[in-house]
Amino acid sequence: MGLKDIGEFGFIRRIRRGCLTRPEGVLRGIGDDAAAFRSDGRLVSLVTTDLLVERVHFLREAISGCDLGHKSLAVNLSDIAAMGGTAREAFVSIAIPDSCELAYLDDIFRGLQDLARKYAVNILGGDTTFSRSDLVINVAVYGVVAENEMLTRSAARPGDVIFCTGCLGDSRAGLHLILEGAGVDAPELDALLAAHRRPEPHLHEGRLLAAAPGIRAAIDVSDGLSSDLGHIVEESRVGARIYAAKLPTSDNLNFFCRRFGRSPLDYALSGGEDYTLLLTAAAGDAGGIAAAFQAAFGRPLYAIGEITDTARMELVDDAGNSAPIRPTGWDHFKRP
Amino acid sequence: MGLKDIGEFGFIRRIRRGCLTRPEGVLRGIGDDAAAFRSDGRLVSLVTTDLLVERVHFLREAISGCDLGHKSLAVNLSDIAAMGGTAREAFVSIAIPDSCELAYLDDIFRGLQDLARKYAVNILGGDTTFSRSDLVINVAVYGVVAENEMLTRSAARPGDVIFCTGCLGDSRAGLHLILEGAGVDAPELDALLAAHRRPEPHLHEGRLLAAAPGIRAAIDVSDGLSSDLGHIVEESRVGARIYAAKLPTSDNLNFFCRRFGRSPLDYALSGGEDYTLLLTAAAGDAGGIAAAFQAAFGRPLYAIGEITDTARMELVDDAGNSAPIRPTGWDHFKRP
Repeated sequence: MGLKDIGEFGFIRRIRRGCLTRPEGVLRGIGDDAAAFRSDGRLVSLVTTDLLVERVHFLREAISGCDLGHKSLAVNLSDIAAMGGTAREAFVSIAIPDSCELAYLDDIFRGLQDLARKYAVNILGGDTTFSRSDLVINVAVYGVVAENEMLTRSAARPGDVIFCTGCLGDSRAGLHLILEGAGVDAPELDALLAAHRRPEPHLHEGRLLAAAPGIRAAIDVSDGLSSDLGHIVEESRVGARIYAAKLPTSDNLNFFCRRFGRSPLDYALSGGEDYTLLLTAAAGDAGGIAAAFQAAFGRPLYAIGEITDTARMELVDDAGNSAPIRPTGWDHFKRP
Repeated sequence: MGLKDIGEFGFIRRIRRGCLTRPEGVLRGIGDDAAAFRSDGRLVSLVTTDLLVERVHFLREAISGCDLGHKSLAVNLSDIAAMGGTAREAFVSIAIPDSCELAYLDDIFRGLQDLARKYAVNILGGDTTFSRSDLVINVAVYGVVAENEMLTRSAARPGDVIFCTGCLGDSRAGLHLILEGAGVDAPELDALLAAHRRPEPHLHEGRLLAAAPGIRAAIDVSDGLSSDLGHIVEESRVGARIYAAKLPTSDNLNFFCRRFGRSPLDYALSGGEDYTLLLTAAAGDAGGIAAAFQAAFGRPLYAIGEITDTARMELVDDAGNSAPIRPTGWDHFKRP
């Protein structure tokens, strides 16, 4: 049996055993957006880490150093946002091949530092070393959250409204433009490239929502809506119903889909790397939460469906017909 | 100008600028064994991270998964030890090539978990992803220390006694056996291999010493005595005098040096990866500290020299002659 057979999540389930040697004070270990544990203060400590490898997560010739630096931090800040936390310190490990120019490295750190500054995050350490082939960046982020405001994947309940904090599918459309070498000849396509290369972590959105009464579960959309909603459904032992007509897609994505004959719904459902937040909230509080979000950020919080008690995920189309949703997000090891 | 010209430490100095965006509460940023910052409790938070890359830090065919897992955590625990801290949580990111068997991965996690258990460290998270060529492991460790017991590289003062917590040079001798494919036909050589593959972090030693009155600066011996002592000298703006006759070398290293015609002194001075601790202590407290160490661990704390005000490092040989020590430790980018 190999990694291809058990897949990324099978591997994680496998290694999870034996990892908790001192359970006291641990609120979340392996399996949420970030680990959460008590230190000696009032706040809960959050730690998340993401490893980006050349030719797997990025192509050096297709992304500027600045965008790569931005993205490698943004994906971690998004995990802190999904826990309702405030990001505080970042740690950057980098393995550098001979072929990597100093100017490119300077740009990586410029991208990291610009985004860090925006969210008052320090880069406090890391590791710098050599690589024989691929450029590798690992970023770890430390954050904090009050325990009663911490958001997890496992707190959704039947009847909850499902929200997302932004449009879905843009990043995947941007990736397609890169992979297919499509000519980017319109501002709409430029915007999709930017969505892929420079995702914005929803830290402020996460903080506002975490403090709102009635908010229950949360995750960030990194693998794709169907996959990430699947994590909430699995960890909360619930089901979910999503309405196709309510999935928010941008004008840019709609332009792209018209141009290339694609379906916006497919991109919204299984896009990945949008780094919007997906949350659930008690139905009675949902209206107030959406209004507070609109007032704070000047854009809507999208209600896209509801949590059910069916243990299944279903998609309701415009005609009212229901079909099962299968998680189609990324698994690094399973091959089709 | 490239990375080869400025070297690893030149690169670190370069990226250090602009990394501190919110200085309040930060006690140590880039440039010590671990970052140290205040969260909201009484204890100081410590974070360190190390990136191990195949064909740079290890050869997969020459190290068992178990040893690799052990080592990738041990090097981080050693950094926490050098800050005087207690290690608490670990985060493991791993990029896995197709060629890596599931059994090898299981062994890596067995090695990680066995060492984690020994020091009551949880593995609370990480990232699992694919790699196109080399196996890559990044481990980050979170620890804590009382602020008044925290050890740094910058606190040495002229007149301090320089201590180390164990023998020097064994690990490098073990590495030579591996790289030169030498036949390992004696228990002494086996022990050197083990010193290289399964270094023991001096966490208990670090805690005892951090709590002792009179202890000042500390670092772990990862790059080699001359290089790591150089960091203390540089960060503390002092000098150092080391006595060749006082450098502790093991019977195993002496056996190896006789067999292969090498100098134990060279190995002790510039070996690297020993993961013993190098510390300085006020001269008046040194005797008491050494006695307490001997009583607690049943082995000596080695006094190997003293801190001076010369801004230089010198080695005094058996005849009393002094010669400058040049840091000869590892730089990942400078080429000879």
